Amino acid sequence: MSNYEIAVLAGDGIGPEIMAEAKKVLSAVEQTCGLSFTLNEYDVGGLAIDNHGQALPEYTLRGCEQADAILFGSIGGPKWDNLPLEQRPERAALLTLRSHFDLFSNLRPAKIYPGLEALSPLRADIAASGFDVLVIRELTSGIYFGQPKGLEGEGEEQFAYDTMRYSKREIRRIAKSAFEAAMKRGKKVTSVDKANVLVCSRLWREVTEEVAKDYPEVELEHIYIDNATMQLLRTPNEFDVMLCSNLFGDIISDECAMITGSMGLLPSASVNETGFGMFEPAGGSAPDIAGKGIANPIAQILSASMMLRFSLNQIEAADLIDDAVLKTLADGVLTGELLSADKRHLAKTTSQVGDAICQHI
Amino acid sequence: MSNYEIAVLAGDGIGPEIMAEAKKVLSAVEQTCGLSFTLNEYDVGGLAIDNHGQALPEYTLRGCEQADAILFGSIGGPKWDNLPLEQRPERAALLTLRSHFDLFSNLRPAKIYPGLEALSPLRADIAASGFDVLVIRELTSGIYFGQPKGLEGEGEEQFAYDTMRYSKREIRRIAKSAFEAAMKRGKKVTSVDKANVLVCSRLWREVTEEVAKDYPEVELEHIYIDNATMQLLRTPNEFDVMLCSNLFGDIISDECAMITGSMGLLPSASVNETGFGMFEPAGGSAPDIAGKGIANPIAQILSASMMLRFSLNQIEAADLIDDAVLKTLADGVLTGELLSADKRHLAKTTSQVGDAICQHI
Ligand SMILES: CC(C)[C@H](C(=O)O)[C@@H](O)C(=O)O
Ligand SMILES: CC(C)[C@H](C(=O)O)[C@@H](O)C(=O)O
Repeated sequence: MSNYEIAVLAGDGIGPEIMAEAKKVLSAVEQTCGLSFTLNEYDVGGLAIDNHGQALPEYTLRGCEQADAILFGSIGGPKWDNLPLEQRPERAALLTLRSHFDLFSNLRPAKIYPGLEALSPLRADIAASGFDVLVIRELTSGIYFGQPKGLEGEGEEQFAYDTMRYSKREIRRIAKSAFEAAMKRGKKVTSVDKANVLVCSRLWREVTEEVAKDYPEVELEHIYIDNATMQLLRTPNEFDVMLCSNLFGDIISDECAMITGSMGLLPSASVNETGFGMFEPAGGSAPDIAGKGIANPIAQILSASMMLRFSLNQIEAADLIDDAVLKTLADGVLTGELLSADKRHLAKTTSQVGDAICQHI
Repeated sequence: MSNYEIAVLAGDGIGPEIMAEAKKVLSAVEQTCGLSFTLNEYDVGGLAIDNHGQALPEYTLRGCEQADAILFGSIGGPKWDNLPLEQRPERAALLTLRSHFDLFSNLRPAKIYPGLEALSPLRADIAASGFDVLVIRELTSGIYFGQPKGLEGEGEEQFAYDTMRYSKREIRRIAKSAFEAAMKRGKKVTSVDKANVLVCSRLWREVTEEVAKDYPEVELEHIYIDNATMQLLRTPNEFDVMLCSNLFGDIISDECAMITGSMGLLPSASVNETGFGMFEPAGGSAPDIAGKGIANPIAQILSASMMLRFSLNQIEAADLIDDAVLKTLADGVLTGELLSADKRHLAKTTSQVGDAICQHI
């Protein structure tokens, strides 16, 4: 029997509540699929600042190093918003984990589920045409990490600078991720850049074209970031895989998430070249609804499914969870934010949704 | 009688057709307001590449230098898309004009006009809640122009780099533009940045806060670019003036334009510290519909109005044009792209719309 060690970093806000449901689902999967998970919990984020003085304590990082994968909740909240930027939970923990484990490939699927079209902020006819996109975002380079970065000069001429930087190697590996993913989906890659202005984008285009040669079945198209932001609103159903640098992927993946109108359903994966990865909901820690038992656990549960699929290579188990989620949604077992005002009294709690998913497993 | 010299750069695609209508409107204004315009035409863009070997010929630049303002059409098209990037019409002409005249302040108003809500790609209830935003984009610095920029190294380790760079002085002057504009509108400035990652954004925040002290009546709020992209879809009516760096403004202004669903109505202004400026439609040269007499001239006409307002300080004349446009829209004198399929047979031509606006002046 395969046994996996999972580092569980539930974090702040709704993190612990939704993580509890993901753990339930993992234990349902243990029984059905003959797997075994050892879940080791570590503090992270605001909780870790309170308990250990920093958002990503050494013992948490060591725990992650020993694990087969990291299941991450969500972090941050008003309590820690007045700390200096470098110490704030989101930045200190996320950016460090990404670069420490070289989690260069960030997968952010976003889709409008059947029956939930009305949640999309897009016009009814556009939302009805369908939306199912996988954003592949480069996560460990670009302007986030490029050096030099700093502040120089005096008075009004004092200036700040950041460096956007990409090597061919970095571009090639993320482009490959995108084409591999496209082969399993709609066989179309839309590469997002600003090649009319950025030298980085030109190298990006060049290398992406090279990688495309190895995937003759996949259609490659290039689009400027400004135009991408627009076309996603006009013809969202024309996109399949969107390949983006770090900064552009940050923007595009959030736009895609909002287009679905159901952030509580969206998981994400960040993996490195060995397949090791960190899996977390796309949404935030939602401190305003934390502790009320009303948060949607599905993003966290689908993050566990992505973990099984991408890091542990347990495809069957992952499919089982995805199916169970689909059935639960189809059954109308929904948390309140997915329901219109007149149906809100039918809302299920966080744990009712988790239970329903377990029953389908 | 005030006489103004205008450099008219009609350009490619629909540029000449819509410029013809703007010229009609300017001559209507000459009569009504007792002004006089000398319109000097210069080649620019693809046309200039064909006639003079470059997108922005020396004689055009000199002509602009002698003028009181530049009225610009639109440039580019498939014919010139295979040129090296640096020589393509959009980039070669626009970026050079912006930096040559230090046109640091780009004003891009975007609004949903009464009666045209159905054109917005947003859900009916969201579009009905209203949208009227002015994006103030910094246009001569940031990652567009920051040095160094280049390509280094060999093989797979070859890397490209671009520099995002802002001085306090550059931030201060664009922030002032935003607060000045907000004083004449809804008294709210939303500054868009990525201060959790970029040093430039932190200086941006710091200087913006300083500038805000001089405008106690204006509410200032900061938002991350990723979140801005989302909130514009969810609660578009909560924005008034959006203050952006060059790259973020490129993205946000295009998202805002698409939210209106009527790109053919949107003008833009790019001005420097002396008030000199260039005025142009927000949309492109639309080569697919060029020469058919069906392009919407309103973006070009409202660009002429912005020219009167911001460069020539002829507020009354500008108000007159804006009013005439509103009345024309209210009368239902619309080009085809503003009409639903079943009403398309009622579409007016480019010159009919221009004539209707002149009649209201
Ligand atoms: C918290 C922040 C640094 C982070 C990012 O920009 O990468 C977040 O927006 C995300 O997308 O995970
Ligand atoms: C053509 C391009 C360089 C330009 C820009 O990015 O500034 C365009 O997108 C614009 O917004 O005017």
